[in-house]
Amino acid sequence: MILMKKIQLYLSFVNLTSNELALKLNGFLMSCLPSDYADFLHRQETNPYSLTVIKNQDGFIWTVNLLNDEAIQKIGSQLLTLREIRLESYDGLITIQRIEQVTLTLKNLTDHFYAETKQPTFTVHFESPTSFKSQGEYVIIPNLRLIFQSLMQKYTRLVAQDDEIDTELLAYLDQHTRIVSYNLKTRYFTVHKQKIPAFQGKLTFSLRGAETLKSYVQMLLKFGEYSGVGIKTSLGMGGLTFEERRN
Amino acid sequence: MILMKKIQLYLSFVNLTSNELALKLNGFLMSCLPSDYADFLHRQETNPYSLTVIKNQDGFIWTVNLLNDEAIQKIGSQLLTLREIRLESYDGLITIQRIEQVTLTLKNLTDHFYAETKQPTFTVHFESPTSFKSQGEYVIIPNLRLIFQSLMQKYTRLVAQDDEIDTELLAYLDQHTRIVSYNLKTRYFTVHKQKIPAFQGKLTFSLRGAETLKSYVQMLLKFGEYSGVGIKTSLGMGGLTFEERRN
Repeated sequence: MILMKKIQLYLSFVNLTSNELALKLNGFLMSCLPSDYADFLHRQETNPYSLTVIKNQDGFIWTVNLLNDEAIQKIGSQLLTLREIRLESYDGLITIQRIEQVTLTLKNLTDHFYAETKQPTFTVHFESPTSFKSQGEYVIIPNLRLIFQSLMQKYTRLVAQDDEIDTELLAYLDQHTRIVSYNLKTRYFTVHKQKIPAFQGKLTFSLRGAETLKSYVQMLLKFGEYSGVGIKTSLGMGGLTFEERRN
Repeated sequence: MILMKKIQLYLSFVNLTSNELALKLNGFLMSCLPSDYADFLHRQETNPYSLTVIKNQDGFIWTVNLLNDEAIQKIGSQLLTLREIRLESYDGLITIQRIEQVTLTLKNLTDHFYAETKQPTFTVHFESPTSFKSQGEYVIIPNLRLIFQSLMQKYTRLVAQDDEIDTELLAYLDQHTRIVSYNLKTRYFTVHKQKIPAFQGKLTFSLRGAETLKSYVQMLLKFGEYSGVGIKTSLGMGGLTFEERRN
């Protein structure tokens, strides 16, 4: 059973920042969808898709993660047939050089959960500007509790179809993990003239405790590669990858 | 009245890391001092000197900050007459290419205090691995409260000759400052086979509140360029500079 899908569109060079392009591509994507589904998406607290735009030497990689069946059907079908993109507020024609896709099955995820792992540390890359909101304030200092809380919230809503996260598990995770190294810098992400403080880079944490806890974290991070982490993941923020090590 | 002195010795290339060289130069420095004064220094909770070793293209810059009169007399006199250094546990002869010194007078510091400043943000560079200890644990996540607490503690002990910091002022500072950007990475500093987690890089914070508070912070940071910040500042950690802007 396919749970989620990651579609990567390799775009020609565009004279915009990845921040600007991400916002425009999100608008473009919404304009391609049936309006009732686009409206439905606007009302969701946790969107069933996330996206990032990352510059490479040839142009930009636009990644769209589709986080449930309906999104795979309705958004995926639009993306996979695209050959070029004409944005409303950008003159040039953007050509799509190639499209790659990866699927995540329930088995992929649960394999992570049941895989024995001796791995004591986990390294996470925040590929696009990442930010959290806590008590009405943006948090740009790395904070494992907020990272896990966000991933658990997204997982609970999208996969477990529940609304309440296991706060005891979150507290336990927080107590048993520790940041051991990082290389991070702040980067502001602009949305409708609002500059959102965020950070980007690499973070490694260690985890003490039961094997199953490690497996759970590994699963949560694998899920996070699709869901993203933190706020505004459908506008280009919070793109996450982790260094998967098998042993 | 000269309060403090910064002596910078430009050393020839040495085949050691700046971490290793800092420890060896501290040992060398202690061996040059009268043994009763070296013993006295060992017993201090806050040492009246701090040092950093930073690599540049030609070799290393060894900076020694002397934080009171006695240190200026006893340590400064040793340093300023040095022409070369032979370390016990390193074969090569280290030549001193040049020596520079800067002094900080009480007037320099109080000028900061009384200078009107409209500056809303302060940028601090952690030039060498910097770490804090709080409740028995190393803290490597940037934390303004710990930064101010450390500077206030050093200032209180070394300049105000008191032992108790103004905890209300610290709380007020903590409430009125906020990290707005940073570019930091962790770097471990090894002392006697113990790897101390630390960070290095650049941090900018904003400060709301009265002009006098800004002046106080500016003075504290100026002082911090001599005292260093956090733990093990006499072994090469916690070297600090700040971007001084006058308006």
